[in-house]
Amino acid sequence: MFGDVVMGVEHDKFEEALQARKDKKKVKFDTGLDEKDLEALVEDYKKIIKQSKNKSFPQDPRMQLKMSVTAVFGSWNNKRAISYRNLHDIPHDIGTGVNVQAMVFGNMGENSGTGVAFTRNPATGEDKFYGEYLFNAQGEDVVAGIRTPQPISRLNEEMPGVYKELIGVRNKLEDHYRDMQDLEFTIQEGKLYILQTRTGKRTAMAALRIAVDMVSKGLIDKRTAVERVEPQMLDQLLHKQLDNKAKEKAKLLTKGLPASPGAALGKVVFDADDAVKESRKDDVVLVRTETSPEDIQGMAVAQGILTARGGMTSHAAVVARGMGKCCVAGAEDIKVYEGKKYLEIKGNRINEGDWITLDGSTGEVFKGKISVVDPVIGGDFKKFMSWVDAYRKIGVRTNADTPQDSKVALDFGAEGIGLCRTEHMFFEADRIKAVRKMIVASSREEREKALAAILPMQKKDFIEIFKVMKGLPVTIRLLDPPLHEFLPHEDEDIKEIAGELGLQFDELKATVNSLHEMNPMLGHRGCRLSITFPEILEMQARAIFEAASELTKKGYKIKPEVMVPLVGSVNEIKLLKGQIIKIADEIIKKGKKRFAYKIGTMIEIPRACVTADEIAEEAEFFSFGTNDLTQMTFGFSRDDAGKFLPDYIDKGIMEKDPFATLDKNGVGQLIKIAVEKGRKTREKIKIGICGEHGGDPSSVEFCHMIGMDYVSCSPYRVPVARLAAARAAIKEEDQKK
Amino acid sequence: MFGDVVMGVEHDKFEEALQARKDKKKVKFDTGLDEKDLEALVEDYKKIIKQSKNKSFPQDPRMQLKMSVTAVFGSWNNKRAISYRNLHDIPHDIGTGVNVQAMVFGNMGENSGTGVAFTRNPATGEDKFYGEYLFNAQGEDVVAGIRTPQPISRLNEEMPGVYKELIGVRNKLEDHYRDMQDLEFTIQEGKLYILQTRTGKRTAMAALRIAVDMVSKGLIDKRTAVERVEPQMLDQLLHKQLDNKAKEKAKLLTKGLPASPGAALGKVVFDADDAVKESRKDDVVLVRTETSPEDIQGMAVAQGILTARGGMTSHAAVVARGMGKCCVAGAEDIKVYEGKKYLEIKGNRINEGDWITLDGSTGEVFKGKISVVDPVIGGDFKKFMSWVDAYRKIGVRTNADTPQDSKVALDFGAEGIGLCRTEHMFFEADRIKAVRKMIVASSREEREKALAAILPMQKKDFIEIFKVMKGLPVTIRLLDPPLHEFLPHEDEDIKEIAGELGLQFDELKATVNSLHEMNPMLGHRGCRLSITFPEILEMQARAIFEAASELTKKGYKIKPEVMVPLVGSVNEIKLLKGQIIKIADEIIKKGKKRFAYKIGTMIEIPRACVTADEIAEEAEFFSFGTNDLTQMTFGFSRDDAGKFLPDYIDKGIMEKDPFATLDKNGVGQLIKIAVEKGRKTREKIKIGICGEHGGDPSSVEFCHMIGMDYVSCSPYRVPVARLAAARAAIKEEDQKK
Repeated sequence: MFGDVVMGVEHDKFEEALQARKDKKKVKFDTGLDEKDLEALVEDYKKIIKQSKNKSFPQDPRMQLKMSVTAVFGSWNNKRAISYRNLHDIPHDIGTGVNVQAMVFGNMGENSGTGVAFTRNPATGEDKFYGEYLFNAQGEDVVAGIRTPQPISRLNEEMPGVYKELIGVRNKLEDHYRDMQDLEFTIQEGKLYILQTRTGKRTAMAALRIAVDMVSKGLIDKRTAVERVEPQMLDQLLHKQLDNKAKEKAKLLTKGLPASPGAALGKVVFDADDAVKESRKDDVVLVRTETSPEDIQGMAVAQGILTARGGMTSHAAVVARGMGKCCVAGAEDIKVYEGKKYLEIKGNRINEGDWITLDGSTGEVFKGKISVVDPVIGGDFKKFMSWVDAYRKIGVRTNADTPQDSKVALDFGAEGIGLCRTEHMFFEADRIKAVRKMIVASSREEREKALAAILPMQKKDFIEIFKVMKGLPVTIRLLDPPLHEFLPHEDEDIKEIAGELGLQFDELKATVNSLHEMNPMLGHRGCRLSITFPEILEMQARAIFEAASELTKKGYKIKPEVMVPLVGSVNEIKLLKGQIIKIADEIIKKGKKRFAYKIGTMIEIPRACVTADEIAEEAEFFSFGTNDLTQMTFGFSRDDAGKFLPDYIDKGIMEKDPFATLDKNGVGQLIKIAVEKGRKTREKIKIGICGEHGGDPSSVEFCHMIGMDYVSCSPYRVPVARLAAARAAIKEEDQKK
Repeated sequence: MFGDVVMGVEHDKFEEALQARKDKKKVKFDTGLDEKDLEALVEDYKKIIKQSKNKSFPQDPRMQLKMSVTAVFGSWNNKRAISYRNLHDIPHDIGTGVNVQAMVFGNMGENSGTGVAFTRNPATGEDKFYGEYLFNAQGEDVVAGIRTPQPISRLNEEMPGVYKELIGVRNKLEDHYRDMQDLEFTIQEGKLYILQTRTGKRTAMAALRIAVDMVSKGLIDKRTAVERVEPQMLDQLLHKQLDNKAKEKAKLLTKGLPASPGAALGKVVFDADDAVKESRKDDVVLVRTETSPEDIQGMAVAQGILTARGGMTSHAAVVARGMGKCCVAGAEDIKVYEGKKYLEIKGNRINEGDWITLDGSTGEVFKGKISVVDPVIGGDFKKFMSWVDAYRKIGVRTNADTPQDSKVALDFGAEGIGLCRTEHMFFEADRIKAVRKMIVASSREEREKALAAILPMQKKDFIEIFKVMKGLPVTIRLLDPPLHEFLPHEDEDIKEIAGELGLQFDELKATVNSLHEMNPMLGHRGCRLSITFPEILEMQARAIFEAASELTKKGYKIKPEVMVPLVGSVNEIKLLKGQIIKIADEIIKKGKKRFAYKIGTMIEIPRACVTADEIAEEAEFFSFGTNDLTQMTFGFSRDDAGKFLPDYIDKGIMEKDPFATLDKNGVGQLIKIAVEKGRKTREKIKIGICGEHGGDPSSVEFCHMIGMDYVSCSPYRVPVARLAAARAAIKEEDQKK
């Protein structure tokens, strides 16, 4: 506390002086210094202060107290505190408080002591007093790890009276705060003092258990229970975790971005083919400089994915989260030599077949195998989530491209599909050849022939997804990525695939070259593809509506929503909508059974936001693609931002990665403009979000606040989004009061 | 006229019927058909109408007249008319008119005839009656080119009375309209009839001469003269043009985008080194798939540049316009084999050393040499431009990176430099090595050493430019492109340059790979470079302020403006501004002579527009970088948009290339938001534009209307911008009345 009086003095200097005294006396611990030494040390400290502040340390205790109090108040406006408040959305004008209390001493002999305790087990949530203590010690000694503290239950044997009193305090505190407390106590010559109590930090499992338990005991109501569990915590619950003790002993190789939570261990492989082959024998971790759609098969069979480049919304991160698979992305220290099949991390060489372990929740990469703990989704989880939905006001959908993903999301409570990406379907082994034939086609006829081969497969995809989703809305996005993503890029692969397609190497190479783009993110993709190749759109529309028609005839209720990606001006969607309606109407007429459908657009281009009033003339729904919108609003490529974003965060230019948490101030303003303009033209237009932010709690809150109809996120994020949406609704209600 | 009655009938069918009649009679011209044939043809036509409209052609002349009139009124709302009005900003509600007049016949014998005339020479502007006529002919015959018409002066010999009357009409029309007229006349049996008159189309040279001439004769005032010359026309005047007659006979190979006006002929070369070598002997045209900064030297020595890819603001286009050099970009039909040193255009092979000719004003590419006409900048031009400035309200600056460019721009009336790009300076042969050393440096110390070598050169650049600009403001943009643009990419070049830098091939290759970006446009560039490598910023700031300090001491007046590029959030400029000010103040203090400077930012990122109120807290000026802002607002890469933009224009999704003409509806809204927010924070903030749009007349008008302080454009565009700004001011005044 007195340290605060000397704000501005480098704290290192005090440490140095202390160390010097200990060195001089050749002792290791502070306790090795006696009274005399400490007196001398106090003189050292006074000198340091005098030198640094050009003022003597005040000797009047009242003055010391006053300065201490002032220092605490002053700390409210230090840089760290301000940035902490910004980060946690704490208002700057609420101020802080100072408690002045008499000292008590736990080191006054063997009938004195000190300890810390939790009113319940903070790891499991079990309703059992939990803590540690040390006799003849001060608070620091318990934490410092020099002496081993005793479990709290033992106090019952050593000082049964004090223990009983402590249990009384525990009960009183819980009854009062109606939450698990983390308290510090000191026993001075047999008398118990409580130094402080605060709400205790807890694991996800504990948070859930405590909340449910307290509701059942009538301590709190369901609304409070919902407020007690942080949405982010649920993520932990749904994924495998590394065993904490094993982790401590393991060799940390490096740290990347925690791109998709969970744990993964496996043998290192460097390409998708090897992943598929090796995974038949053993678990594998796929390591790539960066992944591309060509790696999908390998990612699907791997336990986890590790990349050297790319951010929180890089290809690897997005796909892994979609699959609920562990991923560490953008581990910039790693050099991956895919060709030579090894990687280097700060001088460590890891060869193909070596074991590594990833912690996707922290971004850590370990050498070897670390044991893993399975997630436990118990009855508490289900009960809790049912309460959540009572408060939630906006819908939660999922981003799912396969019947499997759709099923997982449905089990997690998704109320529809907000984004079904059709391109992932194109990469399956039996289709990619037809897709490539379409791309290399030299005439519209050839292209149509190739598309005719894809049509039945696409149709089957949609039939299966529609069936799983049982009448819930399914938003299908038309083909989005640039066509070159479906072609090989290395000469060796071009040679092989040219053979498969019956082309000369030079021909295929020429096509690959002609499709090359300087900035594919801003290139020939999204609805731009449908505009130059209307036959692709036609095939996809046909697949969607034929699937819907067939199932409708069989009695299913189908709600297809066709989503046109990357629209920047109303004329794009106007043109394409006309083409889609023509096909839909033709199929509905032929099928003789009506079903409703919607045609809408992704809003992911700044221009779409400022012209949303025009776009809403045609679009029947908006879905914010905040990944791309963030890229274009900031001018950040998510694949390249890893080169400078860490510096931005370090230097305080940005507080959070805008790809992980929606940038309310910039991107958010554009979204607001779009929502307002869209609703001005079409009052009831359905508005959602399907970017990665749809699963981020603070972004979900933003979506709730500006009045979106739903958020859509990857299947494993659905519970997180449900909880975040419920808490946002509660928060809004509270603010209105 | 009657044709309009049968709107909806395919006009081809009438042509077919006419051709069938001619074939039957084995005649070539319509005039070969006699009365009987024409009667039969009328029957054919009636049948066509009956079949197509299921209605007979009306036989009552009043009905025919009424339908004709209705058809003309109806044509106001056909698709072509609507899109024409959109394109030329003509309101949709002004309507059209119909004149009904009696027929006269120029084919009633040798005392009848017909002709077209201009009141002045439309090619040169000479004040001399100009036209052609034919005796015993209808209007079509003069235009059809079957018979050769007589020059109008000859009419004085053949029919002196009619000629005199015609001259009277000419004078009356000019006196009335006070502009050059294009009129049609018919002589029926010796009597002169005037069929129509309208303002005549004219060349740039004629427009200027007529305007100046009419002012000097008191026919019009200077304000009207300014309204008479289209800004775009001045561009023609300032560049070499292809000789029109020679052009007609030449072999057109293909057409690309008219990226930079003028004409160029030369021997084809495929890389910068060859360009430099070959240009010592002969004129060369540099042909590349696309250019990159590595090609600068080659572009500088070439007569013109031709690229297969890239749009109106591709690297080639921007650099060529800056140099006032002819460029045809994005000629998509061309396949360039740089390695094998030839190109293919629709089956034609052009080898290195073959001659080609480019027309940068039309985008045409011709085989061989076509003769070229030099621009004539006469006294009329200077006089006219002096009038222009009297009306203009916003400033016109230039984008110039060298003393030479600055000089050209100054001669064209530039009032300062709005954009001095420092990166172009880095590419000069004697510097690029030091720049590369800086990039491959493995520590801050090494990097600083390399930068120390660049400092004196940068300083010299600024000294020279400051001197040329004589106290006018000079806005210097800090380094903008990603560092990989300065490194070689092909293995062969890497090998060579590794040698130069004293590195192993593998080392340099690894650096090149580590700097590789998926989307360099959205990557590690602009102020992001200064944030990760503050020492680069430091060197540049030092060069700018040391140059300014030295010259100030010598008595020069210097107004440096340091522009931080690619700012997306206020914290970026806040951090960098602090660093710049520190250096500036240190240098000013040392130099003991004060000079004023400003620190501002480019607004080229959508996020900067919506947070402009925050950014203006730090930025002392805004300069809209509308190239990048257009890219990010649309999500279009200017290097890749050539793949789909032509389709967009064809299909009517877009009316104009947004890289050539500012998209007022989308990008313009963001600019408006930024101007309003910026001025809200800092009322007097200086606001300009330095994107390519600064030289586009309609964009200049927009900049005037929303209250910018200046536009900045390439040197050769300065007169265009001055005129456009003057006309915008006049238009605004007119609208207020």
